[in-house]
Amino acid sequence: MHVLPYKDLPSQLFDDGAMKKVTMQIAVGPEHAAPNFVMRVFTIEPGGHTTRHSHAHEHEVFFHSGKGNVFYDGETREVGAGHVAFIAPYADHQIRNTGDEDLIFVCVVPILKTTL
Amino acid sequence: MHVLPYKDLPSQLFDDGAMKKVTMQIAVGPEHAAPNFVMRVFTIEPGGHTTRHSHAHEHEVFFHSGKGNVFYDGETREVGAGHVAFIAPYADHQIRNTGDEDLIFVCVVPILKTTL
Repeated sequence: MHVLPYKDLPSQLFDDGAMKKVTMQIAVGPEHAAPNFVMRVFTIEPGGHTTRHSHAHEHEVFFHSGKGNVFYDGETREVGAGHVAFIAPYADHQIRNTGDEDLIFVCVVPILKTTL
Repeated sequence: MHVLPYKDLPSQLFDDGAMKKVTMQIAVGPEHAAPNFVMRVFTIEPGGHTTRHSHAHEHEVFFHSGKGNVFYDGETREVGAGHVAFIAPYADHQIRNTGDEDLIFVCVVPILKTTL
């Protein structure tokens, strides 16, 4: 049974400039025999952000805690715990922590397309 | 831009005995042009539970708040905020609120298979 706290999962830090202070954990993916899509948990520390980019695959996002914003095709919207977001294929997007605590969210992508 | 609090989304109550005190909201789905999978937010009130059943499609689950348990192929595990769960295809499963507050979780399924 793959049921556990996400904090117990392996984590990978991304902090290369384009992405800043971002940690990713695979909640459910091919390594757990997931057949269609991958659930990742992201933690962005205060001051951090994901890459601003666009790509062919979509994101379905749920914000668990913290405060931040979503940049989406030229507009920016504030988000916090309980917000959901759909990043459509090819939309220009970025997620940024604008608060004083970690911004934690779930982001689901199709399998075999686990670029960020 | 489809970015909003899940509480603002339309909701559907399921309370037919097999399911008890369960509310579902479509966070991201075909109505938002999602191409591959559907993110739903479930709220189970204290004393409530989903149906115990199995089916061909998988669930990828993230628990946002509350306390409950996951029954999975004969075993039960306690869950709370920040737990993740993978319900594999054909696994016998049920989610139950065992706490005093709402149990709120995200459950993602493949598109066109949005049975519960």
